[in-house]
Amino acid sequence: MHDLEIYEKQGFAQTIGLGERPALVMVDFVLGFTDPAHFGGGNINDAIGATQHLLHAARQRAWPIAHTRVVYADDGSDAGAFTRKAPGLKKLTETSPLSQIVKELQPLPGEVVIRKRQASAFFGTEFSSWLIWNKIDTLLVTGCTTSGCVRATVVDAVAHNLRTIVVTDCVGDRAMGPHEANLFDMGQKYADLMTAAQVLDATSTTA
Amino acid sequence: MHDLEIYEKQGFAQTIGLGERPALVMVDFVLGFTDPAHFGGGNINDAIGATQHLLHAARQRAWPIAHTRVVYADDGSDAGAFTRKAPGLKKLTETSPLSQIVKELQPLPGEVVIRKRQASAFFGTEFSSWLIWNKIDTLLVTGCTTSGCVRATVVDAVAHNLRTIVVTDCVGDRAMGPHEANLFDMGQKYADLMTAAQVLDATSTTA
Amino acid sequence: MHDLEIYEKQGFAQTIGLGERPALVMVDFVLGFTDPAHFGGGNINDAIGATQHLLHAARQRAWPIAHTRVVYADDGSDAGAFTRKAPGLKKLTETSPLSQIVKELQPLPGEVVIRKRQASAFFGTEFSSWLIWNKIDTLLVTGCTTSGCVRATVVDAVAHNLRTIVVTDCVGDRAMGPHEANLFDMGQKYADLMTAAQVLDATSTTA
Amino acid sequence: MHDLEIYEKQGFAQTIGLGERPALVMVDFVLGFTDPAHFGGGNINDAIGATQHLLHAARQRAWPIAHTRVVYADDGSDAGAFTRKAPGLKKLTETSPLSQIVKELQPLPGEVVIRKRQASAFFGTEFSSWLIWNKIDTLLVTGCTTSGCVRATVVDAVAHNLRTIVVTDCVGDRAMGPHEANLFDMGQKYADLMTAAQVLDATSTTA
Repeated sequence: MHDLEIYEKQGFAQTIGLGERPALVMVDFVLGFTDPAHFGGGNINDAIGATQHLLHAARQRAWPIAHTRVVYADDGSDAGAFTRKAPGLKKLTETSPLSQIVKELQPLPGEVVIRKRQASAFFGTEFSSWLIWNKIDTLLVTGCTTSGCVRATVVDAVAHNLRTIVVTDCVGDRAMGPHEANLFDMGQKYADLMTAAQVLDATSTTA
Repeated sequence: MHDLEIYEKQGFAQTIGLGERPALVMVDFVLGFTDPAHFGGGNINDAIGATQHLLHAARQRAWPIAHTRVVYADDGSDAGAFTRKAPGLKKLTETSPLSQIVKELQPLPGEVVIRKRQASAFFGTEFSSWLIWNKIDTLLVTGCTTSGCVRATVVDAVAHNLRTIVVTDCVGDRAMGPHEANLFDMGQKYADLMTAAQVLDATSTTA
Repeated sequence: MHDLEIYEKQGFAQTIGLGERPALVMVDFVLGFTDPAHFGGGNINDAIGATQHLLHAARQRAWPIAHTRVVYADDGSDAGAFTRKAPGLKKLTETSPLSQIVKELQPLPGEVVIRKRQASAFFGTEFSSWLIWNKIDTLLVTGCTTSGCVRATVVDAVAHNLRTIVVTDCVGDRAMGPHEANLFDMGQKYADLMTAAQVLDATSTTA
Repeated sequence: MHDLEIYEKQGFAQTIGLGERPALVMVDFVLGFTDPAHFGGGNINDAIGATQHLLHAARQRAWPIAHTRVVYADDGSDAGAFTRKAPGLKKLTETSPLSQIVKELQPLPGEVVIRKRQASAFFGTEFSSWLIWNKIDTLLVTGCTTSGCVRATVVDAVAHNLRTIVVTDCVGDRAMGPHEANLFDMGQKYADLMTAAQVLDATSTTA
């Protein structure tokens, strides 16, 4: 394949590798993204199922855990350019059923819940401060959508110098073309791609 | 096409629209990205040609103009996770020929040159402060690569609430699959897609 | 006075000047800062009184208006270094009476309310995106405390290239020594100092 | 003293404490700040002397080390609100003698040099990414001026959830009133105050 060839020739897709202190982030696994009538579809519900197992293991290993939700103000006072492009986002308010984290992945006390308005979990939030406080060097990224909030979070994570892992069976998208295209981009340039099983295997001896 | 259908159903790809004060940014049009032996290839050189005309017009209209370069320290003291994924980036130092802006797009005095180490022109730079000082509400994004630094800059631009325009004939990539896939994502979720001709037409009456 | 002399000799304390699009921010005027038994004292309540008049005028002139509150998670999952230094801050949760905006300055629909955990209104928030969306070039800063969240917000505001005005009768502190010392620092290095009356006078003809 | 009393009553000035991985930052110890004819004066030169010893010890212990410089573009294209307040800053360009790090504290290869335009070492820089890459949890802050770039850096450091230490004999200011007032503010709200000797004593067993 020609596209892949030029990336290989130019030396992309090296392995970043795992560090010593992983955290798990679940990006926007909220009800509005489980239903194709709103923002869902594709393989998102499969990704939720796979993440349930990973979350269970992460809790057993006492890894720091973060959830994200999209939350806009009821009066739209914090809407802007992004909600002009995708106006449905404005329905995701603090109390809307659409912006509640899915039942399978309910946060436990002590797990941080990041409210955000943009694609990236880092933008306009204290996610990076939380990572520093928890001495995290490795970020395991799950969530939806692969081509949206996951990709944006991954690009910011590597910019923050986190060893960034996209957990491939734990990310999902409403459409498979963008899902695959963004896994390609992230694997070439920003993150290591690993399944949940590979992550759990490779980290069995870390704290 | 199925992928497109679900985006339409969910209300994506609305028009953000142009504002009143545009700025032009040229992302990483440096020598290292003109040559397939380094980071170039695909339609990048075509994009440089098209951008030359847009830059000329932007100067005539006195729009604020920004260039970006990737610049790492000679001793590698500021390298990190991104350069582990793509080690060749470390060759882009202040005086390396590879990190010099191409001849066709040489900055004039008063045009800002943003040095960056990550994909986005916003990350770890004062690009947003420069935009505020110049009272910019609309960002015209050109440069390379579409699937890399352009995409990252666009995602940050819309998060900053800029009306973000990807100038489709003025962005290029080393491989056409990622180029097209990222134009799709950006057009659906983050930016309006316009040709240079469309931009110049639509802004003929703005300052 | 020797301290002032060296600042004069070195050219500090020039006037930034007002721009064309002001916004008003009220930093942390919440119940917990009205009561010396919690975080209040000094001239904070006087500042609330003066701000009430300024807010009224700002609404008449249709200036964009922002309020900030300190809000930590009920379970302490987002606490960190700052709350180790000042543990009482952890009491400021979403529903705590201490973190509710004072009655005199209740937000109206359409006025943005920024939840923050650190001193600056910019840190870990979308305040800068809101300012860009509203095309703001001038930030009128009121609130408390002068030596804490006001100072931190002002330092970030000027770094964002906003023309930053400290409204001197609308900022307050629990202790007058730090209040005065921080007005001095801000006036020398980061902001213009104006009374509410001076601001309203000087902006009578702006939008 | 009344000012101190209310801080005590409200529970400020608790100890954050040292972590396990310290880094040393030297803020703006450049020639322009050694000479009262430019930006110097007060106890800045004393602070440089004390920092020389601390730097020596930090190198022996292999702590990550960062230097900062203020650097504006030769053509003023990146100047803004801050340089309107203090126009002399624009003289601090890449090659100006005024913006060169002092002889006593010359960086060694592998020590990062952060170029900045605003007061804080974090603003518009990759300082936080460098700290994450080096797994730093504790920031030892030295430099000048106490009431300017040191204070701004400290406020951002604690917001990033770093355990922040102001090394009291290694920070200096052009005027002693602001120096003392800002040590007070920082010690109450943002950082632990320690002498260089105390820092070296307390960290003798850390890596």
